[in-house]
Amino acid sequence: MSINERLEQALLYPQSIALLGVSDDPGKTGGRPLQFLRNSGYAGRIYPINPNRSQVQGEKAWPSLSALPEVPEHVFILSPTDTVVPAVRESAQLGVKLVTILAAGFSESGEEGVQRENELREIAAATGIRILGPSSLGVVNPGNGLVLTANAAFAEPGVPKGKIFVASHSGSMIGALVSRGKARGVGFAGLVSVGSEVDLCVGDICMSTLDDPAIEGYVLFLESLRHGDKLKAFALEAARRGKPVIAYKLGRSSAAAEMAATHTGALAGEDDIADAFLKDLGMVRVEMLETLFEVMPLAQGVAKSRPSQKTVGVVATTGGGAAMVVDQLGMRDVTVQSVSEETQRKLKEAQIPGSAGRILDLTLAGTKYEVMKKALEIMLEAPEFDMVVAVVGSSARLHPELAVKPILEFTNSAKPLAVMLVPDAPEALGTLTQAGIPCFRTPETCADAIAAVWARREPSASADAKIPEGADAHTLSEAQAYEVLDSLQVPHADYVTVPLSADSASLPFDYPVVAKICSAQIPHKTEVGGVVLGINDSAHLSQAFGTLRSNLQQKAPDALCDQILVQPMLKGMTEVLVGYRIDPDAGPIIMLAAGGIWAEVMRDRSIRLAPVSVETAREMIAEVKMLKTVTGLRGKQKGDLEALAQAISNLSMLALRPELKIQEAEVNPMLVLAEGQGVLAVDALVLKAG
Amino acid sequence: MSINERLEQALLYPQSIALLGVSDDPGKTGGRPLQFLRNSGYAGRIYPINPNRSQVQGEKAWPSLSALPEVPEHVFILSPTDTVVPAVRESAQLGVKLVTILAAGFSESGEEGVQRENELREIAAATGIRILGPSSLGVVNPGNGLVLTANAAFAEPGVPKGKIFVASHSGSMIGALVSRGKARGVGFAGLVSVGSEVDLCVGDICMSTLDDPAIEGYVLFLESLRHGDKLKAFALEAARRGKPVIAYKLGRSSAAAEMAATHTGALAGEDDIADAFLKDLGMVRVEMLETLFEVMPLAQGVAKSRPSQKTVGVVATTGGGAAMVVDQLGMRDVTVQSVSEETQRKLKEAQIPGSAGRILDLTLAGTKYEVMKKALEIMLEAPEFDMVVAVVGSSARLHPELAVKPILEFTNSAKPLAVMLVPDAPEALGTLTQAGIPCFRTPETCADAIAAVWARREPSASADAKIPEGADAHTLSEAQAYEVLDSLQVPHADYVTVPLSADSASLPFDYPVVAKICSAQIPHKTEVGGVVLGINDSAHLSQAFGTLRSNLQQKAPDALCDQILVQPMLKGMTEVLVGYRIDPDAGPIIMLAAGGIWAEVMRDRSIRLAPVSVETAREMIAEVKMLKTVTGLRGKQKGDLEALAQAISNLSMLALRPELKIQEAEVNPMLVLAEGQGVLAVDALVLKAG
Repeated sequence: MSINERLEQALLYPQSIALLGVSDDPGKTGGRPLQFLRNSGYAGRIYPINPNRSQVQGEKAWPSLSALPEVPEHVFILSPTDTVVPAVRESAQLGVKLVTILAAGFSESGEEGVQRENELREIAAATGIRILGPSSLGVVNPGNGLVLTANAAFAEPGVPKGKIFVASHSGSMIGALVSRGKARGVGFAGLVSVGSEVDLCVGDICMSTLDDPAIEGYVLFLESLRHGDKLKAFALEAARRGKPVIAYKLGRSSAAAEMAATHTGALAGEDDIADAFLKDLGMVRVEMLETLFEVMPLAQGVAKSRPSQKTVGVVATTGGGAAMVVDQLGMRDVTVQSVSEETQRKLKEAQIPGSAGRILDLTLAGTKYEVMKKALEIMLEAPEFDMVVAVVGSSARLHPELAVKPILEFTNSAKPLAVMLVPDAPEALGTLTQAGIPCFRTPETCADAIAAVWARREPSASADAKIPEGADAHTLSEAQAYEVLDSLQVPHADYVTVPLSADSASLPFDYPVVAKICSAQIPHKTEVGGVVLGINDSAHLSQAFGTLRSNLQQKAPDALCDQILVQPMLKGMTEVLVGYRIDPDAGPIIMLAAGGIWAEVMRDRSIRLAPVSVETAREMIAEVKMLKTVTGLRGKQKGDLEALAQAISNLSMLALRPELKIQEAEVNPMLVLAEGQGVLAVDALVLKAG
Repeated sequence: MSINERLEQALLYPQSIALLGVSDDPGKTGGRPLQFLRNSGYAGRIYPINPNRSQVQGEKAWPSLSALPEVPEHVFILSPTDTVVPAVRESAQLGVKLVTILAAGFSESGEEGVQRENELREIAAATGIRILGPSSLGVVNPGNGLVLTANAAFAEPGVPKGKIFVASHSGSMIGALVSRGKARGVGFAGLVSVGSEVDLCVGDICMSTLDDPAIEGYVLFLESLRHGDKLKAFALEAARRGKPVIAYKLGRSSAAAEMAATHTGALAGEDDIADAFLKDLGMVRVEMLETLFEVMPLAQGVAKSRPSQKTVGVVATTGGGAAMVVDQLGMRDVTVQSVSEETQRKLKEAQIPGSAGRILDLTLAGTKYEVMKKALEIMLEAPEFDMVVAVVGSSARLHPELAVKPILEFTNSAKPLAVMLVPDAPEALGTLTQAGIPCFRTPETCADAIAAVWARREPSASADAKIPEGADAHTLSEAQAYEVLDSLQVPHADYVTVPLSADSASLPFDYPVVAKICSAQIPHKTEVGGVVLGINDSAHLSQAFGTLRSNLQQKAPDALCDQILVQPMLKGMTEVLVGYRIDPDAGPIIMLAAGGIWAEVMRDRSIRLAPVSVETAREMIAEVKMLKTVTGLRGKQKGDLEALAQAISNLSMLALRPELKIQEAEVNPMLVLAEGQGVLAVDALVLKAG
């Protein structure tokens, strides 16, 4: 057995379980797991442990772990916070593979909690025992009745079985997903409340299950990107095996990000970085709760069909219903493709009623089995569509034999077929779901799902990114920063450096110029009056040198500075910021942002995991709205966006050059010149590990 | 009886109905209404009419309208398109009050259809008969069993009764709303499929029901703002009476707008104009389908409480569930207010468990009747919240007595209380809905609803706006346009005009100046080389005059032009466009947009119905993102946004000056100078009715 297999075995298929500190009252949180396991018919051995009682809930209770007749595979520690560390230590000594900790009160609650958490980590490192939690509500495997959880939602019998594995930062959400899935005929192959991830994290847990044939795809409910490296490793491996990973991540708004930080103790990153991370690793990020469990079959279908254009065709029995779907798709920039003339001809030949234009509207008159079947056949064959959405009106509720049943004929369609039902039609939704056909309760989740599967990207080279070792990063001077840019072939403006004491300089370029103090200790030059702009001749230049020296003397007298940097004054068609850095969660990222005050006001930026190809850099350029002003709009001059793409890609290659020890490199501004004239960095800030 | 009462009587409470052209087959579209009316127990008199049969569906059939023993109040014409006009004419001659037309094939389908539609209008105008449709699926009144519809969804018995009246451009949507409402315990006081509105439109129909005490609020499903004047009149009257109007409008994306245009023949306006129209008239515009019927009790609650700050407080039994709601609210810019210290003190005093910060998280431990009740009491009294949202976790499904039941104690809360249930919990939703407490199935509709009620605006003076009479609008010259601006006290740059033949000019302002040809016949001066910029002295000025004359001669030799306008060259901190016009649907509107290419790329603009107060103009300024660059951000200089607000308001007053006969007035650009220095129009285009 591999390490992963051993972990999955203890997690989802344990032969023996100990419930440490189980309560006699099945209504109490600490009493639930025993009751749930008994109700669900779990066939493994269960050892209730309670030092104060000989019986618990009518069963024999053991006084301690060491008193058990065998070493249990999995121990669920239900006892209070202060008993947890000794319990984990004892488990490890006995050779238990996995403990799950219910209690809270660790690093999120002050000094003492941090100390407890450190002890847990030390035990795990020293003994190899794996720890789930703290603050974990437990693990559920509907396949074998392992309802090893304190989540009250599982009091209800019959957790729906299926092929989806869920890992959630929020313990209560696993209950919500089960009840909502159940109402829709969606089942699960496993659900894990990961808690605060002191040892096992989302990535570890999912990775351990990747070889399990019972699991076809993953659903992640994330509050942060904590342990991003593990999540990354899992996502890349899942992508390689074609098992979709669907992610819902909190923190899209700053209020929620702040809340997640206080709720879980996790550091909340910025959402667009998380978004780049999820998508670049091939995950499908959904925006709405119900899409999370609705989208799986669509993600599977798209993974198989590998569409090129990402166009959607719509066939409907209700114009109003279809218009809602089209509207929602349009708002998410999904292309709803009109029915081509060739396809219209085929529809006419097949005597399909209704009208075909932006969509194929069969109308009430076309709400018939044969019509819908033939229409879908033609639409699914039409080369202009990469996906077909069928929108079914009232008949879906009362007469599924008319327009829902024919959809069931296309369960093996090579091209993805999705369905949105306009009325409340739970039975039809159940039938379609059971048949593996992607179907949606609302126009909004339908559009969210389609936009999410189209927005997913095949994982690229980013798997190779390396993080340089070494701490104590320090800033480089501007001149040193340009040397780094040189080594990456990122173009920058000409410059010369002169000693700080210089009174004049001979320049290899024309006036006007700019003079700046050049010091590794003064990263923000303007704040100390360290920049003089618009110098028109040599007299002004020596005057500027004086000004710089006197400003330095007054505002940064202790800074080490022995150079002044002189550069021609340049003006681009527009200015951008291009930045590389190592995000604590996401790892190396590359960012392109609109320059100046715009970047702040509009948050007009695009982010990817680094490194990126020139092609990906072009996609980033297309995502920054401000850059539309230099694409030749309304006859205006074009900027050299091709050179910009090359520069972005080149800078991002830092992710493959750990030997340079660069932790952060921000070019701001990068001037975009007219088409054919390139781009030029005119300032840069680089942070290098010591 | 008033005209409105008579109309409502024939529409929702007719004593007698004729079904013209009813089919013998109850499964066919034309056979359904008879079957539905019989199944629902409608107590009025029903007259099936079919010239080809003596019996229809086992009942006596009459050969014609004139053969009936009485004049029916309401005739539902189910027969084909080509029989419709004669049938309406006969109905009118007999004195029928209202006909509903099922058939399509009118103005949306070519020349002949337009002719038919004109005939219908003539009959209505000449006789006073009212027409619902064409393309109307009919009318339903669940209160008296009037299921007068061909919509197959109503084959199901038991249309849920309630207090919501629905008017829908889409006939199929009334079925979808009923089935979805039924699943949630939401009922209706009436549903009308308005079809293509050749006579009766959404506004007329709703207006006719405003005195009906059975109706407490309105739900509109709109494909366009067709007959905006009637919709406006209704909305203002509904607002006066405190009856909420909820609107879902298609066309948020351009694809859907185009589709609506071909689907209904309606001209699709721009969505942000529609948005301004709906909100300025006090309607609650929702973005999601299910919010449409979920939001009503919240809208009623907010209407009563008249909140000032629009803040939301959140209390939850699940941190993860609450985080979803907070995230969705944050994305919609709704302020989730943290629990104040004073409130935290009160919660502590009352021994409420859990933690209070950004939200009050009761946790599993606090999932108890007494805890939730006391917590809600304190939160609802806390002055920092204008609304409280309770997020209930798994217990809502299995143990509603814990955290749902206490919510029912607050049905008469003066401050709005909304509920979002994290698990699938249809019974708890039904109980809350029945009790009149706003409750939501998903975090997204919960946030959509709250954002929508907060975004509603009290209808303002716009009710008084007048549209000038007269057609054949013509452009004014720039100099004439400035005179219009003068009459409105909208500041513009100084200028002088000189004869076209002039060789020089004495200027009351300094160089540099700009010279422009000034003609009512050349609205787009730059296109004919009619603008010379950057004139630095008198020699250049006379040269510019020559250039303008020669360009005019070459590029617009036929245009009447006898003046040149000279203006100082000015530069503002930024440029905006301020435009007034009469929208064909929405009526007089005023727009503020970012200047230049930005306006196009970012669609960065704000729209209101005209006229607007200075205060409303300030809100508009806050909505244009580009203007954040002149609010003193990062120590930069501020622009004179107060003068801009005054200018916007002044220009918008055109809506109250029909005597000026101005149909359109666009200032572009309007320069925004530094704070205290005002704003200046430096070009303007005005369109005046003949």
